[in-house]
Amino acid sequence: MTKTVSTIVAPEGSLEVLSQHEVERLRDTSGSGLHDLLRRCALAVLNCGTPTDDSREVLETYRDFDIEVIQEDRGLRLKLDNAPAGAFVDGRMIRGIREHLSAVLRDIVYVSNEIQNNDSFDLNSSQGITNAVFHILRNAGALKSGYSPNMVVCWGGHSISREEYDYSKSVGYQLGLRHKDICTGCGPGAMKGPMKGAHVAHAKQRFDGGRYLGVSEPGIIAAEAPNPIVNELVIMPDIEKRLEAFLRVGHGIIVFPGGVGTTEEILYLLGVLLHPDNADMPLPVVLTGPASSAAYFEQVDAFIRATLGDHAADRYQIIIDDPEAVAMAMCHGIDRLTLFRRDNDDAFYFNWRLTVPLAFQQPFIPTHEEMAGLNLGSEQPVHELAANLRRAFSGIVAGNVKEQGIHAIEQHGPYQLHAPGELMTRLDALLNAFVAQHRMKLPGSHYEPCYELVG
Amino acid sequence: MTKTVSTIVAPEGSLEVLSQHEVERLRDTSGSGLHDLLRRCALAVLNCGTPTDDSREVLETYRDFDIEVIQEDRGLRLKLDNAPAGAFVDGRMIRGIREHLSAVLRDIVYVSNEIQNNDSFDLNSSQGITNAVFHILRNAGALKSGYSPNMVVCWGGHSISREEYDYSKSVGYQLGLRHKDICTGCGPGAMKGPMKGAHVAHAKQRFDGGRYLGVSEPGIIAAEAPNPIVNELVIMPDIEKRLEAFLRVGHGIIVFPGGVGTTEEILYLLGVLLHPDNADMPLPVVLTGPASSAAYFEQVDAFIRATLGDHAADRYQIIIDDPEAVAMAMCHGIDRLTLFRRDNDDAFYFNWRLTVPLAFQQPFIPTHEEMAGLNLGSEQPVHELAANLRRAFSGIVAGNVKEQGIHAIEQHGPYQLHAPGELMTRLDALLNAFVAQHRMKLPGSHYEPCYELVG
Amino acid sequence: MTKTVSTIVAPEGSLEVLSQHEVERLRDTSGSGLHDLLRRCALAVLNCGTPTDDSREVLETYRDFDIEVIQEDRGLRLKLDNAPAGAFVDGRMIRGIREHLSAVLRDIVYVSNEIQNNDSFDLNSSQGITNAVFHILRNAGALKSGYSPNMVVCWGGHSISREEYDYSKSVGYQLGLRHKDICTGCGPGAMKGPMKGAHVAHAKQRFDGGRYLGVSEPGIIAAEAPNPIVNELVIMPDIEKRLEAFLRVGHGIIVFPGGVGTTEEILYLLGVLLHPDNADMPLPVVLTGPASSAAYFEQVDAFIRATLGDHAADRYQIIIDDPEAVAMAMCHGIDRLTLFRRDNDDAFYFNWRLTVPLAFQQPFIPTHEEMAGLNLGSEQPVHELAANLRRAFSGIVAGNVKEQGIHAIEQHGPYQLHAPGELMTRLDALLNAFVAQHRMKLPGSHYEPCYELVG
Amino acid sequence: MTKTVSTIVAPEGSLEVLSQHEVERLRDTSGSGLHDLLRRCALAVLNCGTPTDDSREVLETYRDFDIEVIQEDRGLRLKLDNAPAGAFVDGRMIRGIREHLSAVLRDIVYVSNEIQNNDSFDLNSSQGITNAVFHILRNAGALKSGYSPNMVVCWGGHSISREEYDYSKSVGYQLGLRHKDICTGCGPGAMKGPMKGAHVAHAKQRFDGGRYLGVSEPGIIAAEAPNPIVNELVIMPDIEKRLEAFLRVGHGIIVFPGGVGTTEEILYLLGVLLHPDNADMPLPVVLTGPASSAAYFEQVDAFIRATLGDHAADRYQIIIDDPEAVAMAMCHGIDRLTLFRRDNDDAFYFNWRLTVPLAFQQPFIPTHEEMAGLNLGSEQPVHELAANLRRAFSGIVAGNVKEQGIHAIEQHGPYQLHAPGELMTRLDALLNAFVAQHRMKLPGSHYEPCYELVG
Repeated sequence: MTKTVSTIVAPEGSLEVLSQHEVERLRDTSGSGLHDLLRRCALAVLNCGTPTDDSREVLETYRDFDIEVIQEDRGLRLKLDNAPAGAFVDGRMIRGIREHLSAVLRDIVYVSNEIQNNDSFDLNSSQGITNAVFHILRNAGALKSGYSPNMVVCWGGHSISREEYDYSKSVGYQLGLRHKDICTGCGPGAMKGPMKGAHVAHAKQRFDGGRYLGVSEPGIIAAEAPNPIVNELVIMPDIEKRLEAFLRVGHGIIVFPGGVGTTEEILYLLGVLLHPDNADMPLPVVLTGPASSAAYFEQVDAFIRATLGDHAADRYQIIIDDPEAVAMAMCHGIDRLTLFRRDNDDAFYFNWRLTVPLAFQQPFIPTHEEMAGLNLGSEQPVHELAANLRRAFSGIVAGNVKEQGIHAIEQHGPYQLHAPGELMTRLDALLNAFVAQHRMKLPGSHYEPCYELVG
Repeated sequence: MTKTVSTIVAPEGSLEVLSQHEVERLRDTSGSGLHDLLRRCALAVLNCGTPTDDSREVLETYRDFDIEVIQEDRGLRLKLDNAPAGAFVDGRMIRGIREHLSAVLRDIVYVSNEIQNNDSFDLNSSQGITNAVFHILRNAGALKSGYSPNMVVCWGGHSISREEYDYSKSVGYQLGLRHKDICTGCGPGAMKGPMKGAHVAHAKQRFDGGRYLGVSEPGIIAAEAPNPIVNELVIMPDIEKRLEAFLRVGHGIIVFPGGVGTTEEILYLLGVLLHPDNADMPLPVVLTGPASSAAYFEQVDAFIRATLGDHAADRYQIIIDDPEAVAMAMCHGIDRLTLFRRDNDDAFYFNWRLTVPLAFQQPFIPTHEEMAGLNLGSEQPVHELAANLRRAFSGIVAGNVKEQGIHAIEQHGPYQLHAPGELMTRLDALLNAFVAQHRMKLPGSHYEPCYELVG
Repeated sequence: MTKTVSTIVAPEGSLEVLSQHEVERLRDTSGSGLHDLLRRCALAVLNCGTPTDDSREVLETYRDFDIEVIQEDRGLRLKLDNAPAGAFVDGRMIRGIREHLSAVLRDIVYVSNEIQNNDSFDLNSSQGITNAVFHILRNAGALKSGYSPNMVVCWGGHSISREEYDYSKSVGYQLGLRHKDICTGCGPGAMKGPMKGAHVAHAKQRFDGGRYLGVSEPGIIAAEAPNPIVNELVIMPDIEKRLEAFLRVGHGIIVFPGGVGTTEEILYLLGVLLHPDNADMPLPVVLTGPASSAAYFEQVDAFIRATLGDHAADRYQIIIDDPEAVAMAMCHGIDRLTLFRRDNDDAFYFNWRLTVPLAFQQPFIPTHEEMAGLNLGSEQPVHELAANLRRAFSGIVAGNVKEQGIHAIEQHGPYQLHAPGELMTRLDALLNAFVAQHRMKLPGSHYEPCYELVG
Repeated sequence: MTKTVSTIVAPEGSLEVLSQHEVERLRDTSGSGLHDLLRRCALAVLNCGTPTDDSREVLETYRDFDIEVIQEDRGLRLKLDNAPAGAFVDGRMIRGIREHLSAVLRDIVYVSNEIQNNDSFDLNSSQGITNAVFHILRNAGALKSGYSPNMVVCWGGHSISREEYDYSKSVGYQLGLRHKDICTGCGPGAMKGPMKGAHVAHAKQRFDGGRYLGVSEPGIIAAEAPNPIVNELVIMPDIEKRLEAFLRVGHGIIVFPGGVGTTEEILYLLGVLLHPDNADMPLPVVLTGPASSAAYFEQVDAFIRATLGDHAADRYQIIIDDPEAVAMAMCHGIDRLTLFRRDNDDAFYFNWRLTVPLAFQQPFIPTHEEMAGLNLGSEQPVHELAANLRRAFSGIVAGNVKEQGIHAIEQHGPYQLHAPGELMTRLDALLNAFVAQHRMKLPGSHYEPCYELVG
C-alpha cells in the first residue's frame, strides 16, 4: 500500500501572497479552473523521490491526492490530502519540495492571470511569445541582472546508464569548480547528475549563490519530477516555451546521451541556430559522454549531417570522456559570448537578439492527424525540416511518457510518421538504437514503440 | 544658477530587468507614452533635498532635466541630463535615491502595462480597484507574509513647527524601540519625523529589517519628495488608491498636526470606518502632538463631531504630549487587531475585510466645475458627506501644491465651494486657522487661498 | 525614586561562551576578583540614557545594582538586580545595550585572563604594550582585514553647545555620505554627534556595514557612557592604551571643540606625531567647529604653537564652519595614507609603523604627588614636554569626572601643578576659558577647579 | 612528475589578522619555531585530493613545498612554493582549501601563543587540559551558543569498502534531513561519507547553516586530509585532545566499520563513559554498517564484552543496515541529552560535566619502550585497562600512517605488545581480521604489520 501524508503546509520562498481573486481561481475545480492543473503539477513535485517516468502511473497511484489553497492570518496555506510520504521527513515536508510547490503555484497563477488573460500578449506572434517567455521567467525571479554569463544548460536522457550518470556528475563538478550555474529540464539522469556534481564543487568553493535552475512544463513534470536540489523551478506553459527559455537564459549548452527528448532538443537548438539571423550569434554547444558513448554520438552526428547538412555540425563540438576539457570549452565559449553581448550592449540574463522562428514557437499538439501530416521531405529549407523533425520527436516523447500521449496511443494505436526513403532509413536506425540502448523508458519496463514509420 | 549633474546610473534594488517592449514604452515621448510621467516623478525623487512644496517651481527650475532608459549588457541604465546636484555626493548618486528612482520606474511600468492595459482589472468596480491596489503593492514588494502586524501609518502636515517635528520624531523613536515599522506619505514634516525617530531606535535595538514605507502618487510627489531614509517607495496611480493603500497595509494610524491634506486623510479614514460593514473592525487611531498643539486638536475634534457626529470620535483617541503613551496605545491596539485577524484567518499584510465604498475609491479630478458641484449639505448619510468633504479638501490640496491644480487656479481663480450655513462657518474657521498656523504652505511664502466658500 | 529593573538577560553579539574558570573569576567578589570592575562598567553601560558625567553620582544612585554571571543550558546569562530602568523598553533590555554589556564582559575577561596573566606580554616595554593593544582590539573584532582605510576618529568635548553638537552631526553626515566609519571615545556631545550624522547618511547610502566604534576605559566609561548607536564597543584597560588604540586604528582624526580631555588628546596626538620616527607618517588631522568656535581654535592653536612650537601646527589644519570641506579634506588625507600603506605593504587595520614612545604608553596615575612632580619646564625636548603636559591634563580630567580622582580631590584638595612663568600664564588662560565656556562639566553644575597652578 | 603551483593567496574565513610577533614566529624556521609544523599541516590540507594515507609519502613527494607568511597592505598573505596542483582550479586555489589553510594557521598560532606559553593553563592537570581543549575550540569558533544539541560525531575507517562508504553516506543523508550536523576526524572513508550525505540532505532542506566539523591533529592530518566539504576545521595539538574534543562537542556518536583507529576511538569512548562519574550521563552511541558488516560488529562487540565486560555493551546499540533507524535513534538520544542538559543548566555547546580521567588525557608517545611497557593485564580496573588498550591501538595507528611512527618502525622493527593469554588471542584475532578486511591501509598497498603480540 502506498504511504501518504495529509497535512497543511506554508508555501516557501516564492509567491506567498495571493489576492482573493487568485485564490478563488485556484480553488475552482470546474473545467475552466486551474485546480486540476495545480493538482497534477503539485503531485509531480511531491513525488520526486520515486523512480518512475510514467505520468499516468503517478496519477493513478495517488488518485486520492488533493490540494487546496487556504487563506490564513499569516499568509497562504496549502492543504494536502494523501500526498506521497516520500516528500516528508518525520511528518514535515522537505523544504526544497515546499519551495517547488510554491513555484508551481506561482507559475500557474501567473500564466493564467497575467499572460493568458492579458491582451498585451499576442501569443500568435513570434514577438508576443518571446515576450511571454520573458515575463514568466522574470516573474519567477530567474532573470537576474548584475551577473556575468555563467548559466550552462545541460540536456540529456532521463534514462541513462550508471556510467553516463557518473560522467554527467563529473562534468557538473568541473563546471561548479569554475563557478558555473546549471540549468536542466528537471528529472533524473542527465538532468540531475550535473547539478549534483556542481553542488559539491560549489560547496568546496564556498559558492553559496549557486543556481540549479529547473525548467519544466505541466505535460512532462510528472515524468521528470524536479530533484529537490533544484533551487529555482519554473513551469513554462508548454514544451515550446520551455525550449525557448533554455535558449534565452542559457550561456552555453551541453548535451549528454539521451533518447527522443534529447534529439528533440538538439533539433530545436540547431534549427534555431541555423536561421540566417543567428549566423554570428556565439553560443558554445558541446556533445559529450564517457568513452562508452562514443558510438552514440557518431550516430547522432551522422543523423544531423544527413538531415541538416554538414554545416549544422559546425555549431557543436563533440568531446569524449574528458569532463575538464568540457568545462574549459564552456568557459572559453562563454567568454566569447560575454564579449559579444558587451559589444552589442545586450543583456546578459536574456538573449533578446536570438531569432526563434514562429515554427519553433507555436505549440504542437501531437494528435494522430498532426503527426501523420508532418512534412518530413527533404525538398524544404533546412530549418523548416528541422522544425518538423522536432515536432515528430516531440510527439514520440508524448507517446512515451506524457499522460495525453499515452492515452491517445492506447486509443488509436501508434502514430504514423511519413518519411521519404532515405530519411526513413536513418530515422529507423536512430530510433531502434534508442530502443536497444534503453533510452526510451526507464530500464525494467518493456518498450512498446508508440510510432510507426510509413514510407 | 542651479547646479546639475549629467550622468548614467544603474537602477538599484527593484526592477532592474525590463522587457524590450517596456523599455520602448518608457522611451516613448509622445503624448500617450510614459516618458513625461517618468520624467516628472524622477525629478521629484532626485530633488528630495530641496525644501520646497511647489511642484511647478521644481519643474520650472529643472526644465532641462531629462531621463532616458537605455539597455546595456549587464542590465538597464538610466541616462540623466541636468539632474539636481543634491542627489549626488562627489558625482555619485546617493544610493537611497537610486533605489527611489528604480521604484518610480517599476511602478510606472507596472501600472501602465499590467493594470491599465489589463482587462482582468475592472477599475470601475470597488472590488476591481481594491484588486489593483493589492497588485501594485505586491509588485512593489510591500506585502510581506510571515510578519506580525507592526506597520504604523503616520499622517500629518508637511509644514509643521520645529516643536511639532521634534515631537513626531519622539513618537517615532518610541515606536521604533518597540520594533514598529513606519509608513507615511513621504515628504518633510510629520512624514519624515517619525521615520527619523524610528530609524535611531531601530539602530539601538539592532533591528536591521526596519521598514520605512513611503506611499506617494505622481501628483504630490514633487511637492512631498521622499526622504532617502524611506527604504520602500510605492507610487500609487492616484490619491484615492494611495489612501486605500494606507488603510489596507497599516495596522494602526497616528495623526500629527497638519493642514488640508491631513484633514483629507482624517475624513477619508473616518468616512470609511463609519461604514456599517466596518463597525467591528479594530484599527487603533491616535491623534497626537506636543502640548502646544492641544488647541489644534480641539478644533479638529470639534469639526469632526459637528460634521460626522459624536460617534465618529469614538474611532480615535487624542493624546497630548506623551510619545511613550502614544506608542503603548498603538502596541495595545495592534495586539487587538492581531487577535482579530487571527480569529478570522485574515492576512496580516493586507486588510481584505475592510469595506471601502466606491465613493472613496473613484478618482476625483478637482476641476472648478466638480468642486462647485460638491454636495456638502448635512441632509445626506454621514459617510457620503465624509466622502464629499474629503473631495473638497483634496481639491484644496491640489490647488495649493499640485501642478495641475495650481495651473487651474491661475486660469480660473479660486475654487467655489458651496456649503450650507453652519458647515460654512466651521469650514471657514478651520481653514483660516490652517492659514494662520502656516499649515497651508511652507513658511516664508505668502499663502493666497485657492478656494472661496460660497453660501 | 530611581526606577530600576531586575531581570536575567542573555549576552548578545560578542562573547557568549565562557569557560568555567572564566565564569568563576567573574563571580569572584573578593578584592582580587573582577566582579567589582564588571559591576561598575556594566552600570555605566546600562545608564547610558542619563545625562550625567559624574561617575560617583552614578554609582551612588544605583548603589543596589548588582550583576551576576550564570551558566545556563543554552549559554551564559547575566542576572541583573536593580538596573537603571532606562536601559529597558517594556521590561526588555534594548538590544544595543545588551551588546555593550557583552562587550564589557568580553574585554574584562580577555584583559584579565589573556593579557595580564600572560607572560608573553611584557607590559613594561613599548613593544609589549603595543602588542597588548593589538590583541585586545583583535579579540574585540575591531581589526578587520579586507577593507580600505575609512575609519575617522572624532574627538571633542562631552559638554558642548547645541550649535557645536549640530555641527559635529553635520560633519558626521558628510563623512557618512562618503562611506566613512566613525570612531569616538563614547559618551555625549562631540562623541555622539558625528555618529548620529553618519548613521543617517549611511542609511541614505544603504550602507549597512557602517561601523560606530566606541573605545572607552573603565575609569571614564561611567562619565561618558556609550550611546547605543555605537555598534562596536571596546574597553581598553587604561587611558593610555585607549589613546594608542585611537591612533593605531584611525585613518584620520577630527577634533571638535572640547575641554581638558580634548586637550589631553591633542597633546598626545601631536607629541606622538612630533617624534622623529613619525616625521613622514601621513595622518590627516582637522580641527573644526562652527563659526562661533573660531576663537576657541585660535586659543588652542596659540597654546600649541607656544608650547610645542610652530612646526607642531603643520600637523593639522583648522577648518571653520564647513562640514563638506572637512569631509573632503579627510577623504583626501585618507587617500594619501592609503597609498603610503600600500607602498609600504602596511596593514590597513592597524598602524604598526607608528612609533609611540614609552612615555606616552605607561599608565599615569594622577596622585597629588605625581601631579605636583610633573616637569612642565620648557628646557626639555618638545615631545617630552608634550608627554608631561598630557599627563597634567589627564590628571585634571580625573579630578573632574573620574571616581578615584574626585575622591582624591575631596580628601587632599586641588592638585598642585608647577609650571614656569610663561607656560603658567598660558595654561591659566586656557583653563579659565574652558571654565567660562562650560567645557569642564555638563552645564547646570557649578565647576570647582580640581587644580591650582603654582609658580 | 608531480604537478605543482607556486602562488600567493589570502587567508580566508578565519584568522586574517596576525600581530607582528605572531608573524615572526611563523616565519621562524629554526627548530623552536612553528614553521615546520605549519609547513607539514599546510601540505596535508593542500593535498586533500590525493588518495593516500601515507604521511611520509606525501612529505617526500612534495619535498620542495614551502609556505611563507607575508604581511601586506590589506592583511596577511601566504606565499606557497610548489604546492600540489590539485588544490587549484585554473591556477586559483579552491576556496574551501584556502579556508582550511587559514584554520591551520589560526590553530598553530593560538596553541603556540596562548596555550603553550601561557601559565594559566596547567597542562598536567585534568582540569587544565580540559580548559585548553575548550579554549582551542572556542578560538576556532567551534563553540556556538544559542543552538540546540545536534552535532553527531561519526567515526569509522578511512579505508572501507564502497558498500560501507555508500552506507555511511545514507546515514549522513538521513541525519541531514533531520537537520543534524556532522563532526568527523577528517579524511576519506567513513569520515567523508556522512558529510557528503548530510550535505545533499541539507541542500534539499535548504538548511544553509549546516556544519561539517573536522577535528584533526598534526600527526594524522597528512594521512587523513580534510575533504573541502569540511566547513569548520580545528587542529588540536595531539590525539588525546582531539578525542576529548569529540566527546565534549558531540551530542551523539555513530561508529562505522573501521580498523585500529576506530577501535582506539571506541576504547576511549567506553573507557570514559565507564568511569563511575559518568554513569548517568546520557550520550547516544550507535554502531552501524551495511548488512555485509554484521560479522564485523559481532567481532568488535565480542572483543569489548571480553575485555571491558558486558555492561560496557549497555552503552551502545548496534543497528545493521537501516540508515533511517540510525538517524531516528540519534534524534531520540539527543532529545534525552537535551533534557538532561536543560535540567542541569549545562551548556549545549561543551560538555563540561563529563569526567575524562587524566589517563585518557595525557599525551601518549608510542615509543618502542612505552609500547612494550603497556600493562594489558586483566587484573586492573576496567577503565584503566581501557586506557592502556587505547594507548596500544594508538601506537599501531602511528606505526601504520603517522610519519614518526613509520620512521620508528623502520628503525627498530615492529612494536612489541605484551598481552596475557586470553587477551592476546582476542587481540590477535581482531587485528588479523582488520588486516584481512583491508582496514589497516588503503587497498592496493601490501600491509606489513607494525606490531608483534608477545605473551
